[in-house]
Amino acid sequence: MRIGLDIGGTKTDAVAIGAGGRELARVRRASGFGADQVVGCAEEAVREVVRRTGGRLTDVTGVGVGIPGVVDAATGRVRHAVNLGVAEVPLADLLSKRLGAAVIVENDVKAASLGAWHLLRLTGSAALLNVGTGLSAGIVVGGRVWRGPRGTAGEIGHAPIDPAGVACSCGQTGCLETLASGSAIARMWRTDAALPAVELFDRADAGEAAAMRVRGVFVDGVAQAVRMLVLSVDVETIVIGGGLSGLGERLQTPLREVFHHWAAASPFLASLDLPGRTRLLPAGTPAAAVGAAMLGTVPQFA
Amino acid sequence: MRIGLDIGGTKTDAVAIGAGGRELARVRRASGFGADQVVGCAEEAVREVVRRTGGRLTDVTGVGVGIPGVVDAATGRVRHAVNLGVAEVPLADLLSKRLGAAVIVENDVKAASLGAWHLLRLTGSAALLNVGTGLSAGIVVGGRVWRGPRGTAGEIGHAPIDPAGVACSCGQTGCLETLASGSAIARMWRTDAALPAVELFDRADAGEAAAMRVRGVFVDGVAQAVRMLVLSVDVETIVIGGGLSGLGERLQTPLREVFHHWAAASPFLASLDLPGRTRLLPAGTPAAAVGAAMLGTVPQFA
Repeated sequence: MRIGLDIGGTKTDAVAIGAGGRELARVRRASGFGADQVVGCAEEAVREVVRRTGGRLTDVTGVGVGIPGVVDAATGRVRHAVNLGVAEVPLADLLSKRLGAAVIVENDVKAASLGAWHLLRLTGSAALLNVGTGLSAGIVVGGRVWRGPRGTAGEIGHAPIDPAGVACSCGQTGCLETLASGSAIARMWRTDAALPAVELFDRADAGEAAAMRVRGVFVDGVAQAVRMLVLSVDVETIVIGGGLSGLGERLQTPLREVFHHWAAASPFLASLDLPGRTRLLPAGTPAAAVGAAMLGTVPQFA
Repeated sequence: MRIGLDIGGTKTDAVAIGAGGRELARVRRASGFGADQVVGCAEEAVREVVRRTGGRLTDVTGVGVGIPGVVDAATGRVRHAVNLGVAEVPLADLLSKRLGAAVIVENDVKAASLGAWHLLRLTGSAALLNVGTGLSAGIVVGGRVWRGPRGTAGEIGHAPIDPAGVACSCGQTGCLETLASGSAIARMWRTDAALPAVELFDRADAGEAAAMRVRGVFVDGVAQAVRMLVLSVDVETIVIGGGLSGLGERLQTPLREVFHHWAAASPFLASLDLPGRTRLLPAGTPAAAVGAAMLGTVPQFA
């Protein structure tokens, strides 16, 4: 069996995948904070999910890890995993020694793109557009993650699309992430609500003008991200994931409206069939963990 | 030997490529206008270049064609080759019958990206950013053209990057092509000069404020196109080709200045090393013809 780990800012998910891609077991734990705890928690999650399958660690043919931050996929080193309190850690090496199994590490969004590709039974090429605190995409071609030589493939969150936009944390101005992300909503919609995006969409549904305007900016930004992926990489399917995809139909419906509005103005855009190629990742889909488990099963791009 | 054709709006180039990728012969003819003449001219160019090698048509193992317009690479049909007076033509079928050889047809920019990859001895991944009348890019990964499932990979010319920009011919607003293309210069710099871009750069070099402003907008647009390719596809090398790349150092120097300016404001952008990854296609490089000849030598992306 293969094990996939999704180490998030608050929780670590582990799945065990058997022959034919079948899920054998799944566990969830609170993530640690700081390199030592993160590695320790990951080790325990692997041991626990293996135990639940009734098997043993020696049955594990490979472990894959998806984690936020900058990942050197070749060495398995992780840097700048800020939400986990990790400045830098040789995660693959440490985890591999503790488990006695080969460990592959990948950025969580890239891992999730591979997981979505498998779980949604996609073929050809696809992107997972992760609309979370930030905005980025993972790209899969023929079952392989396309990282690009520097690992910035799909980093469209930091593509500027408005010279008159606001400053972005990356030092540029008007990046897509300043419109289409949780941090963008937090900036545009000041509230003490626990779930600012849900409150925003509730108020917009109720007809509150300010909320409708902010929702419009956000949804237009998500639509622009889809368009940019199609006009640069050209993947067949764009799957929207990340925390904000949990809005479900409330996001998808206005998103389709933006696409139809664009198509009415531009025959070229109409020919791209953006509504037909864009879908949401169903809530609760363990895309990053399953994708992490699948990382070692296909050769990397040369 | 393999034959590559570059059918442009005014001229058709043919090259014969022998073992090891060596150029055996090259010819240039005026392109025909309308489907019949275009096909006839292409046939004659192939016969002529084969004759110059001292060989015969039966020595030809394959013919590749690069042509502007919308190309269905699977069937070899060409549509909307406006500059050639072609509404639609089954180019591969017609040319194949006349020559008795297999013919592969591809969009000229995509063919040129493959040619640049071979001629500049690139490895890994690369994009040819074609700055001509319009703006588009061809993408090559491991010696194969990445078209995308709908053929829009690299079509960043129609990615909008300024909501306050001008209307684009595609029906959208503020597309990259409205800044970084020959048509953009023609709109921004009204002149009767035979070579508007050369006049523009001459005047800018002479310190004329209006010319410096327009040159700045154009160069910034080219830089934005490079950045978008790196942040979406992430290719290792970006080669700038097309008619405007003939500006040479006069384009490359201010382009580097834009990159350095960006890098000073954004450590993230600095880490991308855009100046080190961007180069110009040397003037006179027969990239599209050579790339067309190489089309059949590597398997297509699945």
